[in-house]
Amino acid sequence: MENHEPYVPEPAIYRLPWYLACVSRLRAQGVEYVSSTAISHQLNVDASQIAKDLSYLNIKGKTRIGYEVRGLEKGLLDFLGFERVHKAVMMGVGSLGAALMADSGLSRYGLDIVAGFDVNPDVVGTSACDKPVYHISELDQRVMELGAEIAVIAVPVESCAEVAELCVRAGIKALWNFTPFHIKTSADVAIQNTSIYAHLAVMYNRMPK
Amino acid sequence: MENHEPYVPEPAIYRLPWYLACVSRLRAQGVEYVSSTAISHQLNVDASQIAKDLSYLNIKGKTRIGYEVRGLEKGLLDFLGFERVHKAVMMGVGSLGAALMADSGLSRYGLDIVAGFDVNPDVVGTSACDKPVYHISELDQRVMELGAEIAVIAVPVESCAEVAELCVRAGIKALWNFTPFHIKTSADVAIQNTSIYAHLAVMYNRMPK
Repeated sequence: MENHEPYVPEPAIYRLPWYLACVSRLRAQGVEYVSSTAISHQLNVDASQIAKDLSYLNIKGKTRIGYEVRGLEKGLLDFLGFERVHKAVMMGVGSLGAALMADSGLSRYGLDIVAGFDVNPDVVGTSACDKPVYHISELDQRVMELGAEIAVIAVPVESCAEVAELCVRAGIKALWNFTPFHIKTSADVAIQNTSIYAHLAVMYNRMPK
Repeated sequence: MENHEPYVPEPAIYRLPWYLACVSRLRAQGVEYVSSTAISHQLNVDASQIAKDLSYLNIKGKTRIGYEVRGLEKGLLDFLGFERVHKAVMMGVGSLGAALMADSGLSRYGLDIVAGFDVNPDVVGTSACDKPVYHISELDQRVMELGAEIAVIAVPVESCAEVAELCVRAGIKALWNFTPFHIKTSADVAIQNTSIYAHLAVMYNRMPK
C-alpha cells in the first residue's frame, strides 16, 4: 500500500488514467520503452507536464531511453487502485443508478457494486444486474454485512443531502455523487462529484453555432 | 437564442446546474424569492461567487429581497440548454454506451440519443432502448439523415482517436468523450471529456485509510 502514500495533486491524478491508457496500448503492441515526448504526441499533453506528473509517483525515465513500458503501466495501475477491489453500494436504482450497475467497465476499474438501495416499492426486493436491491432503511446493517466502503449516489437531487448523511452514518468512507447537489459534510469522507449533466451544459454552451 | 450569447467561464457553467437544482426545489416548495446567502447555505458555495456567476447571465437579485425564484429558474434553464433537444449518436454500444442510452436522465437534460454505432456484429442491426444500432461505416449517411449534432464516445480507448476523427468528418459539432483518451482535433468542434474512471481514481486516492 506504499504506493498510496505520495501526495499527488488532483489535476495530476486526472491525467494519470490517460497515461495508463496510452501505455497499456503500447504494451499490447509490444513496445518496451516510451519517452514522455512520444506520450505527449499521443495525448496532447506537454511532455514536461507528463514527466512532472509521473515524478509524483516516483517514476522516472532514463535519459535517451525513456520509461520502461511495463514498469510504467504497473506503477500507474498500483497508484490508481484500479486493480484492487473496492466494494460499493448504489444509492438510488433509477435510470442512472441501474445504468451504472450495468456498466461492467466500473468493475474493470476496481469498483464492485454489491447492492442497490432505494425506497421505490417497484424496485426494492428485486435485483439489478444480479445484485439485490434493498430498502434504504436496511442501509446500516447491509453496509456492515457487505463491507462496503463507497456509496455511489444517483438519487433524485432533492434527496441527495439526506442520503449522503445516511451513508456517512452507516460508515461509508467515500461518496461518488452523480447528482448536481453539492454535498457538504464535516465527516472524514472523500467526496467525488461527477455532474455528468453539468458537462452536458458546458458542451452545449461550447458547440459551434 | 440570445441567452447563449454571454461568455461564461467553464467553472461557472459547472456550478449553474447546482443553482438550478436548488432553485427548482425551492420553486416546488412554493418559495418566491431567494437570496444568494440562502443558496450559499444549501450548496456550500460562497454567496459572492453565486452572485458573480449569475451576473454572467445578466441575472441580478434585488437588495434585501434576493432573486425571484421562477425568473431565476427560467434564466438558468434557458442558458443551460436543458430544455432544447440536442440530437446525438452513441459511438460504441458496449457496456457503458448501452448504459448511457438507457439513462432517461440524459433526455431530461436535452440529450436525445437517436442511434448507436458499433462494429461488433452481435450488436449491429439490433436495437438498444428502441434505438437502432448501425455499423460505423454508415455514420456519414446516418448523421446527415438523422440531423445529429453530438457524438457520445464510449468505444474502447484504443479506437477513440479514430472514431473521433470519423465523427468530425461526418459533420458532428460536439464530442462527449467517456474514454480516458485525450482527443485532439483542429476542427471547430466542442470536446467535453467525462473521464468517470479518472474520478474513480481521485476518489480511491482521497479515501480515508
